[in-house]
Amino acid sequence: MPEFKPQRPGEVAVDMPPATDAGLRFIGRIRTPWKTPADCPKNSRERQALGILEVDEPYVTGLKDLELYSHVILLYWLHESRRDLVIQAPSHLAAPRGVFALRSPVRPNLIGLSALPLLSVEGARVTVQGIDCADGTPLIDIKPYFATIDSHPDARRP
Amino acid sequence: MPEFKPQRPGEVAVDMPPATDAGLRFIGRIRTPWKTPADCPKNSRERQALGILEVDEPYVTGLKDLELYSHVILLYWLHESRRDLVIQAPSHLAAPRGVFALRSPVRPNLIGLSALPLLSVEGARVTVQGIDCADGTPLIDIKPYFATIDSHPDARRP
Repeated sequence: MPEFKPQRPGEVAVDMPPATDAGLRFIGRIRTPWKTPADCPKNSRERQALGILEVDEPYVTGLKDLELYSHVILLYWLHESRRDLVIQAPSHLAAPRGVFALRSPVRPNLIGLSALPLLSVEGARVTVQGIDCADGTPLIDIKPYFATIDSHPDARRP
Repeated sequence: MPEFKPQRPGEVAVDMPPATDAGLRFIGRIRTPWKTPADCPKNSRERQALGILEVDEPYVTGLKDLELYSHVILLYWLHESRRDLVIQAPSHLAAPRGVFALRSPVRPNLIGLSALPLLSVEGARVTVQGIDCADGTPLIDIKPYFATIDSHPDARRP
C-alpha cells in the first residue's frame, strides 16, 4: 500500500470492511501525458490532452461499432488512492465535504469516471480527448454516451 | 452462478481471466419498483420511477452536502449478469455490436451507471428519479454530477 498524505483538519476516516463483495478485471490501461496523479490537471476546462486507451485481449472484439458514437464514458481504477476518508477537505473548498459530494479520487471504491469526446478507434487503440488521469491508469469499462439519459446541461452545483 | 440465456446468433463469448485485479465493497443497495432485471424498463424515456438508495454504515457520513447538487451519477453492480459476451445481439438492433458500444448489463465488469435527478437526502436514504435497475441492486458509488464535464447535449449516436 502506498503512503498517503496526512489527513487535513476536519477530515474523517472510517474502518472499512475488506473489499471482497465483487471483483474487477482490468481491460486495459490509459496512456496520458500526466506521469503521476500529482501532475494531473485540476481544472477540467484545461483538459484538452489526448488519451489513448490500450484495450487488452480478449476484449478488443468488444470495440466493434464503438466509432459510431461521438462520446464515451470511461471507468477506470484510481489505484494509488486511499479508500477510507468519508469526509474530505479539498484545498479549494472552505469547509470539509462528504466523499459522495466530491469527485475526489479518494473514495470507498476507487472508480474514476470521465465523459469525453471519442476521436478514433484503431484496432486495440481508442483515442479520446480531455482525459485527466495519470499515465498507466487501469481501464475498467468503456460505455457509449447517450445524450438522452446522460446529459443534464442544467444540473446545478454549489 | 445464475443460469444465463442461450447466446443469440452472432454473439461471441470469450474466456475471461478471473476478476481479481481489484476488489469492490458494496456501500448500500438501491430500492426500486422493479423486482427482477426482466421487469426493468427498457426505454429510458419511461424512467420516472423513484429509487431509494440505502447507504450502509460506515459510509453515511460521506453523504454530507450531497443535497447541494441537483443531479448525481450512480454506479451499481449488475450482479445477475454474465461477463464474457464481447459481441452481443440485442433484439432492438439489426446486427450484433461490441459490448463497449452497448449499455448492456452484460459486460466484463458488471458496473451500471445512471445520471439522475437527486430529490432528497434524509439520513442514510437518498431519493433519485428515473432509476431503471432491479430492486436490491448493490450500490458502489455516488458522484455529484458536474454539467461542465459530464453533460454533452450534442453527443451523437447511431
